[in-house]
Amino acid sequence: MKQVSEKVVSRLIIYRKYLKELLADGQKSIFSHKISAYTGASAAQVRRDLMNVGYNGTPVKGYNIKDLMTSISEFLEKENTIEVAIVGFGNLGKSIVDYCNGRNSRLSISAAFDTDPNKINRVIHGCHCYANTEMETIIKENKVEVAILAVPREDAQKVADKLVACGIKGILNYSPTRLQVPANIYVENRDMLMALEKVAYFANNVHGGKNK
Amino acid sequence: MKQVSEKVVSRLIIYRKYLKELLADGQKSIFSHKISAYTGASAAQVRRDLMNVGYNGTPVKGYNIKDLMTSISEFLEKENTIEVAIVGFGNLGKSIVDYCNGRNSRLSISAAFDTDPNKINRVIHGCHCYANTEMETIIKENKVEVAILAVPREDAQKVADKLVACGIKGILNYSPTRLQVPANIYVENRDMLMALEKVAYFANNVHGGKNK
Repeated sequence: MKQVSEKVVSRLIIYRKYLKELLADGQKSIFSHKISAYTGASAAQVRRDLMNVGYNGTPVKGYNIKDLMTSISEFLEKENTIEVAIVGFGNLGKSIVDYCNGRNSRLSISAAFDTDPNKINRVIHGCHCYANTEMETIIKENKVEVAILAVPREDAQKVADKLVACGIKGILNYSPTRLQVPANIYVENRDMLMALEKVAYFANNVHGGKNK
Repeated sequence: MKQVSEKVVSRLIIYRKYLKELLADGQKSIFSHKISAYTGASAAQVRRDLMNVGYNGTPVKGYNIKDLMTSISEFLEKENTIEVAIVGFGNLGKSIVDYCNGRNSRLSISAAFDTDPNKINRVIHGCHCYANTEMETIIKENKVEVAILAVPREDAQKVADKLVACGIKGILNYSPTRLQVPANIYVENRDMLMALEKVAYFANNVHGGKNK
């Protein structure tokens, strides 16, 4: 399959979210310039991005929303469900499970890991919580490929090393530290404070408005 | 003050975080190419970005880390603390408060709002929780400028309308929906599922590695 850039993947994910909302509103088709207005990408960019997923609209009707969503999903996700584990099952971990599970049928957070004996071997928010010591077994048995890191800063690197050793290929890192990982591991950092700092800056400085 | 783009602001926030880590490790000065290696921006880009904050390094010693951090902070934040409110004080809201408070001395999440009577008028995770009905009074009295939205999807727009009416200028939106707001309100959307979808894609597709 064609290799595309991070920016294209990020935009495809945004397009799909928008299409889902439109479909829920009962809309059937859409033109690239409408998708453009929602996402901030130019209409030409939208058309180029969508060519990557092998789906083309028609000049008269635009894109069929349902078909386009299917094409984007086939491009982004494999046929089998991608198994995800979360490490650190505190408030953040629980809210991520609540937020994500059930919203994408091909992604499932099916295992959580924590060191707290009150959580271990319990199903919390629909997710089985295991001891950190069971990580290798569970990740291998369940073919987990992606991990979400929601542990305190001081534990993050140690846990990341363990996850990589277990064969994890991608990490969504909510711990406020930069991880050292091999070059073939994909890490996406989500520092919540940095997001807040950005909003605080623009709330206090004149700008043209932005809502993507 | 010079108006800079979102990308520059985002990078300045990343640089500052890196500098903070270096300072904690006892380092005193740094060259632009080292900052470049950490952030993925080119060394020339780093130098251009830092010119915006009015601080220049020397070719021999590079940048003084402490002074550079101060300059970035003076550029990003005003002298007075920026007051932040969080709406929706569930697991996500609590984890955001834990995560952010105390990590930037000029940003403070000082008020939370919820509809749950068990939370109202209590101090939870160091943050006073008020009823949604008190929003206007509290926001105006405390000069709150920024709000974090951590409410369910179905309540998000209604709450955003109310926040805008109360004078909020920036929203960090964790609710999985796009908000309709006036053009002068800055909105940063953080959809946790979209972040996970991105990691899942790259975990399953060959790439050159990425960890910014």
